[in-house]
Amino acid sequence: MSDRIILKLGGSVITDKGADCRVNHAALSGIAADIAVVPATGIVVVHGAGSCGHPEARKYRLDQGVAAGQTEGIAVTHRAVSALNAEVVAALRSAGVQALGVHPLHAGVADKGRLVAFESRHLEKMLALGMVPVIHGDVVMDLSRGACIVSGDQLVRYLAVALKCNRVGLATDVPGVLDGGRVVPEITPQTMYTLQIGNSSYTDVTGGMKGKIDELLGLAAAGTGSDIFEVSRLGDFLAGKDHGGTKVRGG
Amino acid sequence: MSDRIILKLGGSVITDKGADCRVNHAALSGIAADIAVVPATGIVVVHGAGSCGHPEARKYRLDQGVAAGQTEGIAVTHRAVSALNAEVVAALRSAGVQALGVHPLHAGVADKGRLVAFESRHLEKMLALGMVPVIHGDVVMDLSRGACIVSGDQLVRYLAVALKCNRVGLATDVPGVLDGGRVVPEITPQTMYTLQIGNSSYTDVTGGMKGKIDELLGLAAAGTGSDIFEVSRLGDFLAGKDHGGTKVRGG
Repeated sequence: MSDRIILKLGGSVITDKGADCRVNHAALSGIAADIAVVPATGIVVVHGAGSCGHPEARKYRLDQGVAAGQTEGIAVTHRAVSALNAEVVAALRSAGVQALGVHPLHAGVADKGRLVAFESRHLEKMLALGMVPVIHGDVVMDLSRGACIVSGDQLVRYLAVALKCNRVGLATDVPGVLDGGRVVPEITPQTMYTLQIGNSSYTDVTGGMKGKIDELLGLAAAGTGSDIFEVSRLGDFLAGKDHGGTKVRGG
Repeated sequence: MSDRIILKLGGSVITDKGADCRVNHAALSGIAADIAVVPATGIVVVHGAGSCGHPEARKYRLDQGVAAGQTEGIAVTHRAVSALNAEVVAALRSAGVQALGVHPLHAGVADKGRLVAFESRHLEKMLALGMVPVIHGDVVMDLSRGACIVSGDQLVRYLAVALKCNRVGLATDVPGVLDGGRVVPEITPQTMYTLQIGNSSYTDVTGGMKGKIDELLGLAAAGTGSDIFEVSRLGDFLAGKDHGGTKVRGG
């Protein structure tokens, strides 16, 4: 059986940190070129919001839920992340990849901040036809809270299981998970609490590096390990080579 | 219990016929103004593709399904109808309506050209928060055919049942269903086959007026009647007044 891969592109990789939704086109071109040369296999791309969406989510306090009459932030935040998604899709298509954006606000439902449903049969069909679905951190309607933010990392965890992916890679702007400046080669539930992991300095409403690792340990516990590496090593990851980063495993 | 309404905007109402995706902004402004003054109730807007999307669907022969390596038409057609959807949403939001676009390609799944799934819990939550979901005829992944076109009329039928709507209105560019130039006041399964209903002259990959009435008779058989009227009478329909058009009933 050939690989089925979920590739997460960190928001800080594809946008310039701190700026007001400035897309990093050079980074996107390089990523698209790496993906375009992968032999035909199933790839799902998930990307973070970076500086497109986090500021809006924070401004409208979407982490506190949404009540009737306060729905403006849903539309504004979704518009920001959708615009970034369109840029990612365009970069991939320019490189010859049959990419298609899929918005979690349209496809999914959350409850208490966690996805409880996300249509995946259309994603299966896209993969079967050689397409690359491109999904992103998004505002999602929430049965208890009105709406919530679902991070790209939560989507990775959910979709890796739903789509039975056997490889999960997270491309970031650092060489892996760092402890005292050095890359941690492997993280398991047993070693997690011995680490000193800093929070990202970058504005993030979804929990930074600790939130990311919590999602990935949950996924590893369900049987699927994941790899965190610097985006410059994306080609190595896709080729199944050593990427110099961090492996998250179930222990 | 207050009304829950599905309002279908015909593609020939919101775009200029024949032109290459020319949006009828004047019509959209009038429609948005009519919707904005409706007392708080639940409204779902569904719109056709008009000259945005039908030409693309025809060019790529999406009615014949999609195989691997032939997926370009999915992205191109979806982009065209999504751009129109963004215009409809923008017009409604300019009038103060909390409109939010939802793409069937992301939310639904079809088989043999018919919807077999469409997430509706997020739509329910949007309605509960006073939002107006704006949905549109779209290309949808199809379990048997790869992909297919799902018309706005098919969406009306599916969503009216899923969302338990008690009123269904279709705003068109004619005063109702015409038989020999006169409006047919009521259509039932019994009277349907006595009528001489012309096909729309307008390019339509989804079956024209006959396809529309088939969907609406199916919906009527499931217990929900619908009304077809000229868009200039939209305010009358929304207010529950006589609109001079055609009522489709279960007989």
